[in-house]
Amino acid sequence: MSTPFLLGILGGMGPLATLDLMHKLLRATPASSDQQQIPHVVWNVPQIADRQQALAGTGPSPLPQLLLGVEQLNRAGASHIVIACNTAHHWYEALAQHSDAPLLHIVDATLAVFEGKEKPRRVGLIATQGTLDAGWFQHGFASMGIESVQPTPEELRQWFVPGCYAVKRGELRTGGELLSLQAQALRDRGAERLVLACTEVPVALAEVTSPHLAVSIDPAEALAQQCARLWLTQREAWH
Amino acid sequence: MSTPFLLGILGGMGPLATLDLMHKLLRATPASSDQQQIPHVVWNVPQIADRQQALAGTGPSPLPQLLLGVEQLNRAGASHIVIACNTAHHWYEALAQHSDAPLLHIVDATLAVFEGKEKPRRVGLIATQGTLDAGWFQHGFASMGIESVQPTPEELRQWFVPGCYAVKRGELRTGGELLSLQAQALRDRGAERLVLACTEVPVALAEVTSPHLAVSIDPAEALAQQCARLWLTQREAWH
Repeated sequence: MSTPFLLGILGGMGPLATLDLMHKLLRATPASSDQQQIPHVVWNVPQIADRQQALAGTGPSPLPQLLLGVEQLNRAGASHIVIACNTAHHWYEALAQHSDAPLLHIVDATLAVFEGKEKPRRVGLIATQGTLDAGWFQHGFASMGIESVQPTPEELRQWFVPGCYAVKRGELRTGGELLSLQAQALRDRGAERLVLACTEVPVALAEVTSPHLAVSIDPAEALAQQCARLWLTQREAWH
Repeated sequence: MSTPFLLGILGGMGPLATLDLMHKLLRATPASSDQQQIPHVVWNVPQIADRQQALAGTGPSPLPQLLLGVEQLNRAGASHIVIACNTAHHWYEALAQHSDAPLLHIVDATLAVFEGKEKPRRVGLIATQGTLDAGWFQHGFASMGIESVQPTPEELRQWFVPGCYAVKRGELRTGGELLSLQAQALRDRGAERLVLACTEVPVALAEVTSPHLAVSIDPAEALAQQCARLWLTQREAWH
């Protein structure tokens, strides 16, 4: 009854973005039966302090609830854990130290998409202030010779933040329209590709069938593909 | 850090049907922020013996894996558990005895849909041989004065079983076409309403925008609504 591979998903940020990652996991795995799909256990508990507010210094830290989620995923037998939220990677080190199961990092998965391919000169980064301040994406891109283009504080205030909260309220169309404006602004400043580094963004752009999706990289999709590759190396052990 | 309410979902049968239930849970809960959504932990591990084959006597029992899932959901702190598969309710008693958290029953949730409303004379039941043999839906309907109309063995073989397995392979359109034929046959025999008592069926009929959906009751939807009502009675405790 042991589970040699069991992916733990630390979700709830928000709960719909977690479902989006789960759909991507299922699509990323070549499978002709249920039994070939990636086994996973999901902590989809949205009763967690707002990450954006915490990093802006206007709200409590979500760390205690994140640690609880990691603990419970370990109790449930997770062999590997992913965090279904770009911004929550701010607390990655503390969570990784607290976990017996190794934590995969969404930025590593995203950088892997560019490996062995012709690289764009400039990549636009659609992300929360917290993710932008952390700088992981920018450092990673710089190490590959790629320049980052970021939203301005004014753009975040006008488009990005209200767009994300619209998605969280279930108003996907409104969210998609606001986030499309953000995407256009980055492309106007020379971004050849876009990284949609907030889990609400791909959901919203898909709702309005945005043309920006054609040049976009979805870190959640990259993470799903990384998990699927890992699962495929271990799938034989189940049979 | 205690979790006064945490819904455990015993899923993986199949993994896509589990996501469908999660979407229904989110839609069934009135919420204007992530934090108001139902907290849940999901065991979406599809490495489990085929339920239909087990009940037909042609494959091993899924009970050991179902018990493991219930155990792990309890370890992760679930306060209530639901089973995201009609057929797996065959093992409901054994699972309920094995769990500290109470298990809600999908048939109770479905019967609640008919309470206090004008009742149909005949309800068609689209379900696996295992669910049909168990008889819970038929007994429940009989207790309300409602007659059940069931698929014939020939219909199951020709439409229902290949339709479900098509969904499990990700061929939703093929599945929807086959299951629409099954739905039509039950309505031709006098069913005024249909109960889609296999989690693959609503997904597939939605894919082909089947007109039968207008007279259908989805037990997974009924279960989601029951969970949402339960959560709403307890939501205040989080604030």
